[in-house]
Amino acid sequence: MAAELDGQALVVAGAMSSHPDVARESAAAWYLERAYTSFEEMAKAEASAANGIDFVIIATPNHLHCPVAKAFLAAGIHVVCDKPLALTVAEGEELARRVAAGSTLFALTHNYTGYPAVRQAREMVRAGQLGELRKVLVEYSQDWLMEPRESQGDKQAAWRTDPARAGEGGCIGDIGTHAANLLEFVTCRRIEALCADLSSFVAGRRLDDDANLLLRLEGGAKGTLVCSQVACGEENRLSIRIYGTRAGLEWRQQEPNTLLYKAAGSPWSELRAGQGYLAAPARALSRLPPGHPEGYLEAFGNIYRAFIADVRRVQLGQPPLRDYPGVEDGVRGLRFVAQAVASSRAGAVWLPV
Amino acid sequence: MAAELDGQALVVAGAMSSHPDVARESAAAWYLERAYTSFEEMAKAEASAANGIDFVIIATPNHLHCPVAKAFLAAGIHVVCDKPLALTVAEGEELARRVAAGSTLFALTHNYTGYPAVRQAREMVRAGQLGELRKVLVEYSQDWLMEPRESQGDKQAAWRTDPARAGEGGCIGDIGTHAANLLEFVTCRRIEALCADLSSFVAGRRLDDDANLLLRLEGGAKGTLVCSQVACGEENRLSIRIYGTRAGLEWRQQEPNTLLYKAAGSPWSELRAGQGYLAAPARALSRLPPGHPEGYLEAFGNIYRAFIADVRRVQLGQPPLRDYPGVEDGVRGLRFVAQAVASSRAGAVWLPV
Amino acid sequence: MAAELDGQALVVAGAMSSHPDVARESAAAWYLERAYTSFEEMAKAEASAANGIDFVIIATPNHLHCPVAKAFLAAGIHVVCDKPLALTVAEGEELARRVAAGSTLFALTHNYTGYPAVRQAREMVRAGQLGELRKVLVEYSQDWLMEPRESQGDKQAAWRTDPARAGEGGCIGDIGTHAANLLEFVTCRRIEALCADLSSFVAGRRLDDDANLLLRLEGGAKGTLVCSQVACGEENRLSIRIYGTRAGLEWRQQEPNTLLYKAAGSPWSELRAGQGYLAAPARALSRLPPGHPEGYLEAFGNIYRAFIADVRRVQLGQPPLRDYPGVEDGVRGLRFVAQAVASSRAGAVWLPV
Amino acid sequence: MAAELDGQALVVAGAMSSHPDVARESAAAWYLERAYTSFEEMAKAEASAANGIDFVIIATPNHLHCPVAKAFLAAGIHVVCDKPLALTVAEGEELARRVAAGSTLFALTHNYTGYPAVRQAREMVRAGQLGELRKVLVEYSQDWLMEPRESQGDKQAAWRTDPARAGEGGCIGDIGTHAANLLEFVTCRRIEALCADLSSFVAGRRLDDDANLLLRLEGGAKGTLVCSQVACGEENRLSIRIYGTRAGLEWRQQEPNTLLYKAAGSPWSELRAGQGYLAAPARALSRLPPGHPEGYLEAFGNIYRAFIADVRRVQLGQPPLRDYPGVEDGVRGLRFVAQAVASSRAGAVWLPV
Repeated sequence: MAAELDGQALVVAGAMSSHPDVARESAAAWYLERAYTSFEEMAKAEASAANGIDFVIIATPNHLHCPVAKAFLAAGIHVVCDKPLALTVAEGEELARRVAAGSTLFALTHNYTGYPAVRQAREMVRAGQLGELRKVLVEYSQDWLMEPRESQGDKQAAWRTDPARAGEGGCIGDIGTHAANLLEFVTCRRIEALCADLSSFVAGRRLDDDANLLLRLEGGAKGTLVCSQVACGEENRLSIRIYGTRAGLEWRQQEPNTLLYKAAGSPWSELRAGQGYLAAPARALSRLPPGHPEGYLEAFGNIYRAFIADVRRVQLGQPPLRDYPGVEDGVRGLRFVAQAVASSRAGAVWLPV
Repeated sequence: MAAELDGQALVVAGAMSSHPDVARESAAAWYLERAYTSFEEMAKAEASAANGIDFVIIATPNHLHCPVAKAFLAAGIHVVCDKPLALTVAEGEELARRVAAGSTLFALTHNYTGYPAVRQAREMVRAGQLGELRKVLVEYSQDWLMEPRESQGDKQAAWRTDPARAGEGGCIGDIGTHAANLLEFVTCRRIEALCADLSSFVAGRRLDDDANLLLRLEGGAKGTLVCSQVACGEENRLSIRIYGTRAGLEWRQQEPNTLLYKAAGSPWSELRAGQGYLAAPARALSRLPPGHPEGYLEAFGNIYRAFIADVRRVQLGQPPLRDYPGVEDGVRGLRFVAQAVASSRAGAVWLPV
Repeated sequence: MAAELDGQALVVAGAMSSHPDVARESAAAWYLERAYTSFEEMAKAEASAANGIDFVIIATPNHLHCPVAKAFLAAGIHVVCDKPLALTVAEGEELARRVAAGSTLFALTHNYTGYPAVRQAREMVRAGQLGELRKVLVEYSQDWLMEPRESQGDKQAAWRTDPARAGEGGCIGDIGTHAANLLEFVTCRRIEALCADLSSFVAGRRLDDDANLLLRLEGGAKGTLVCSQVACGEENRLSIRIYGTRAGLEWRQQEPNTLLYKAAGSPWSELRAGQGYLAAPARALSRLPPGHPEGYLEAFGNIYRAFIADVRRVQLGQPPLRDYPGVEDGVRGLRFVAQAVASSRAGAVWLPV
Repeated sequence: MAAELDGQALVVAGAMSSHPDVARESAAAWYLERAYTSFEEMAKAEASAANGIDFVIIATPNHLHCPVAKAFLAAGIHVVCDKPLALTVAEGEELARRVAAGSTLFALTHNYTGYPAVRQAREMVRAGQLGELRKVLVEYSQDWLMEPRESQGDKQAAWRTDPARAGEGGCIGDIGTHAANLLEFVTCRRIEALCADLSSFVAGRRLDDDANLLLRLEGGAKGTLVCSQVACGEENRLSIRIYGTRAGLEWRQQEPNTLLYKAAGSPWSELRAGQGYLAAPARALSRLPPGHPEGYLEAFGNIYRAFIADVRRVQLGQPPLRDYPGVEDGVRGLRFVAQAVASSRAGAVWLPV
């Protein structure tokens, strides 16, 4: 839905299953023209077809991200890949080398960066409206894994809690990386070091389902990152707060069209998506007038829109703008997860990222 | 975007302008396959084409709703029409007779009824969770016409404040009807009588830009409807509150994924879109898990989804469900506007609807 | 509590009951030094005592406001009286004449005007920050009378729904007057005309328990006033919104320390009680630093503080400032109620106030 | 104001300054009957006076808490003392021994525990409504020290950033202790270990003005505590969230009359202060009907009310209930600060509390 939202793309082919019947049925349900039973076959066939796809969307369990991405990169087909980028840092770095070595485009779906208010926050940080940053608080809380769903027949839960398919991070990999990426995206500063306390609260769970981290950022700001998939009652509570010497900012994903801005000595401000007073890059991300709420799909669609525009540019021989998360963000995410896991295993000690 | 959201429809033809060049360019910008310079031509050609359109979307200024709708109804093409249904009650009633006389489907885009929380509210009223209704407060406030935009080159403002193209209602017709429809949709009760005080605050404006109404409903409930397009600082503040003998309900369009429920003697409840505890008809309107905000487009898309499913049913010879606003709602809206205008002109006196 | 909040007054005497035993026990429970069994006796005794009270607080059912006030005015004792001022307009006007003819101070406890954010709103209107006023929406909703408590042994409910003790207004008199007063206080404009639809939803109730009004104000603004004591789930939901040509304002009593300000074309602002950027008269009403919530008692205490300062001024031979609601506000409130009741009885027609 | 709120106490004597003139003037301004120039003198004189004070309130800079408390304890006068209890753990433990050895009452003003919603939260935890606790997030953010006020003539800032008068904790001592106490109060579980990253963001500041902590609690819950006095735009943002296996809870001091409760699989609930459905200990802390906001003073007053009731009990020879924070809470607070400072100095490592 997000890819097709602006009428700029149409999903026409897919490898939805290795079982021919399932693949065919799924393709029919999605109105696909061409169904494959393996991604290798799809990459080859689409690359050589006259009307082959312009780009592929990888929305598999994590352990397949890397092999599928490699196959399509090798076939010269642009890639939009779910995060995390790969199972391990090494795998991710290899992928990054391949992307860097070629001219095929690569986007990573850190979709929350597609919200207008998030973009506005980054523009305000960049413009110095917050002054020197001192503190950042980022959170991503859910409750969908508060029971042992993985042993109750839930396929999503099964692979997301399985180290072989999800990687070494559970909650920290699944949503902690979104929080870390959001933090780095908005502040334009990297997490330099972390001290992570990961937990598996649900009995028998093989990966973490909750994490609390202390953070230190480039330039001296400090803060915390908390994430949980066992926070009873929370749906998809992603939020970020940033405090600088001149102002504070706050954004909450569940009410995404408002950005709270607290300048020193002034009334609090609520900046609203779609308004003319926003910075141009934020304004450009709204499709509707203010007060007509846009949400998750629209933000996700903004990532696709920027990527598709780049695909067009490349097809016209123009340089791409790469105004969306890419393979390097993916590598950073993998390092973040690896160091968080290592920190926690060592007793929640400080490690660089 | 809303029509195509679920991948169930594709906009392929259009009459975007009477100027051939503009029509062609607009069609190209929208990736349309077929461009027309008149709706009559389009209706005829599409009706006789093998791959002609299944339904048409009428998104013109109000005065064209009726002639365009008639043309497509006559051609046997299903119709999705913007509100208000027509310029006058008489025009609307004629349209309603034609729809009733045929088997062509007709939907009116009272799109706000497509929100999951709105549907949930109706289900709760229907199930008796509010008891006997006593009071309803409905509001729709904007500020986009607080300056005389119609004389400053704004085309939207120009036709919406022009009686010849908008009808006799300004604000009351443009957004007051949405509020009235929402009220009747959720309460399942009709507005029986109204007392309306309409104003044109902006100098030189020919239609009302603000209205305050007292309401009486079937069954004894009373309330107010206020709407404004000069409410400085308001974007698209549509909200409804309903109080019964057992509970109160509150919904606000700008934060549409929450429904506030206040049962007598109990803590206030926030019901959230997408949750499993919602009534089935409300649950069915969410595309994403809870906490992944859906907004205006998704709600609008729900109207289209229900309509398209009906188009399929009719094509398969099955009876349609008509689970979306239709031509009768349009006639009611026109009567509401006519009586509000008449009431106000008579000095804000009570009139039946 | 409110009177004593600033340590500027001490309740030392009272006529709490006409039964000597009850009067004595009540006085003891309140740590009073002197107990009376009639207000006449109290007025006389305190007026002639060396350490007699400086002012009296009248917190009786409505029908006693006037006789008690007269007794203390006659005794030269300053008066703080609950609203409504009296049972009828005539009674209230007579009281106003007596107050005007003497030098005894008189305050009416329209306590909601004591909130810092309310005062700030008035200062902003006065300073022209809203431009020319166009629309006002004021509301006061409760649910405590949604059941027939008056026939279930609830004394408060009994007198408040009894015309002989409450006057001809039920909900409209008890809380509608607060809403009307708040509106006039903040806008600095009078309600010129009203059209009122009053209801008694609870079977057997002798006075209205719900009201919806259309309003017209001096200077051309229009709006609505809604109040209810049967709005299931509402506690004490008093709120006001004002829209002008330059900005909108919104205040909600249940979260009283924030004033929402929406200037044209700008982000929404939240002004917070206690902050240095507020107007001086608003700043002066906070006792604590920002973020330390103050509430109902503190706002009520602000009325007392201003009144007590006036008592001191008068005792020192200085002219009083009268920066609190007075007897004239009381007369206006009585007229408002009388016209609302008359309007409703005549079928909800327009009447001047 | 808080002590006198319920009319159960009157401040009659004080040692407001060591300068006789200032002491006299301050006493007059506060309407005190007796002014002293030293606390030793006051303790002695009041202890031997027939109408001597029943209890003393210690509201001095931190370094005086212990000597003043000792003087009044020695004189047999009950003590209400500001937090932190003393300058050092050793000092605090000595004080605790003296309190334990005698029969003089001792209250520590962790005033935020006096809010009805906070008490309700504790009752719900105690009753098992949250199940087994997994996660706690507590925060206390302000911005009043975001500039170097201590070098700009601000007396409050001067002593609060001076180790000799404030102790070794700055922000962590001043407000971090409130957060820690609130957490332990509501969860009924002790902080077992912490890992603290303290900062002094303002140049030249001698104590911390910001802190981020990881926490582990008795029974296995984990979480974070963040506090700041340089969080630009924040007033007094104290909040707590608790997640258990059955529900989550959330409370925010700036809107203190609402407690958010999120039970698994159910709509979110807003419990409101003053409502009949609250637990009895929470209901008892409201003075007004629901919807009449109570705030900081009222919560503080609840601590005094419970303490004064105990004073009465002791005077009547009855055992005290000690339903307010006491000297042991003070010792815990001092240990918390000491270990947070030690942890941070060692590079933010884990230490037991």
